[in-house]
Amino acid sequence: MAFVMIREAKEGDCGNILRLIRELAEYEKLSDQVKISEEALRADGFGETPFYHCLVAEILSAPGEPQGPCVVGYGLYYFSYSTWNGRNIYLEDIYVKPEYRGQGIGSKIIKKVAEVALDKGCSQLRLAVLDWNKRAMDLYKALGAQDLTEAEGWHCFRFEEEAMRELAGR
Amino acid sequence: MAFVMIREAKEGDCGNILRLIRELAEYEKLSDQVKISEEALRADGFGETPFYHCLVAEILSAPGEPQGPCVVGYGLYYFSYSTWNGRNIYLEDIYVKPEYRGQGIGSKIIKKVAEVALDKGCSQLRLAVLDWNKRAMDLYKALGAQDLTEAEGWHCFRFEEEAMRELAGR
Repeated sequence: MAFVMIREAKEGDCGNILRLIRELAEYEKLSDQVKISEEALRADGFGETPFYHCLVAEILSAPGEPQGPCVVGYGLYYFSYSTWNGRNIYLEDIYVKPEYRGQGIGSKIIKKVAEVALDKGCSQLRLAVLDWNKRAMDLYKALGAQDLTEAEGWHCFRFEEEAMRELAGR
Repeated sequence: MAFVMIREAKEGDCGNILRLIRELAEYEKLSDQVKISEEALRADGFGETPFYHCLVAEILSAPGEPQGPCVVGYGLYYFSYSTWNGRNIYLEDIYVKPEYRGQGIGSKIIKKVAEVALDKGCSQLRLAVLDWNKRAMDLYKALGAQDLTEAEGWHCFRFEEEAMRELAGR
């Protein structure tokens, strides 16, 4: 029998994390937008001032089973800030490989992020979900999250690098 | 004649910033959600590891004019992270007092944030807007931003502290 462990990512996990990032983007039908490299993930997450933190879900085999430990999911987050209630956590990505879904691994990752948030004095955990991803939306709602786009009308906006260069006159 | 200067906030600006945060929340019809204190803004923004950064728009009077400098707007941001393209900036709040709108102060704040983003190697500037705030939406679009809720279907989700405590079993 196999066990799932949710643990903090180490620098050596970056190759596996990048593979899962690409899988998630493919699932979201937005894989053309992935430009990041393993080197950037290593530098940005494991330097002196980490720009993100990451949890991985690892399957541990029982003694005697042929396969070694295997990373099958991740949750990547950073600390954000609300002018209404101070420190928050933003869960940028959460993903579990399709063949490992339905076992509660995603919920375990979210629970662990909630623990980190509370330990760090954060009062909210935010994330963004695609509207056609009903399975994910239903899970987050079942776990107690609110859809703020639906409830209050919030829209996500983004300036890309080219628009920023134009703004900055560069 | 008065001049507008966009500058980095100092710790002594926190009282003015809090007043503007409350004005913005009132404008957004969500002022019951503001729980933050001036002390928290001072501690979180001006300690060793700042949780946010802030720009203020200050009106400078010409010599001989009776009024001293006066803070009439702010833009509060933090560094975020995308697994698609690395370091980003998130503009949590941008606000200009109603009597100072229509003079391009909001655009000046966004331009300055874009400059900071480029200087820090960020490839995107993200923000969230309420769907009835057409004036703001039109401004961001005119400046080159994309509405990702409209274009790709992203919804903003949030777990409040109580939901996090339940998740963490506390």
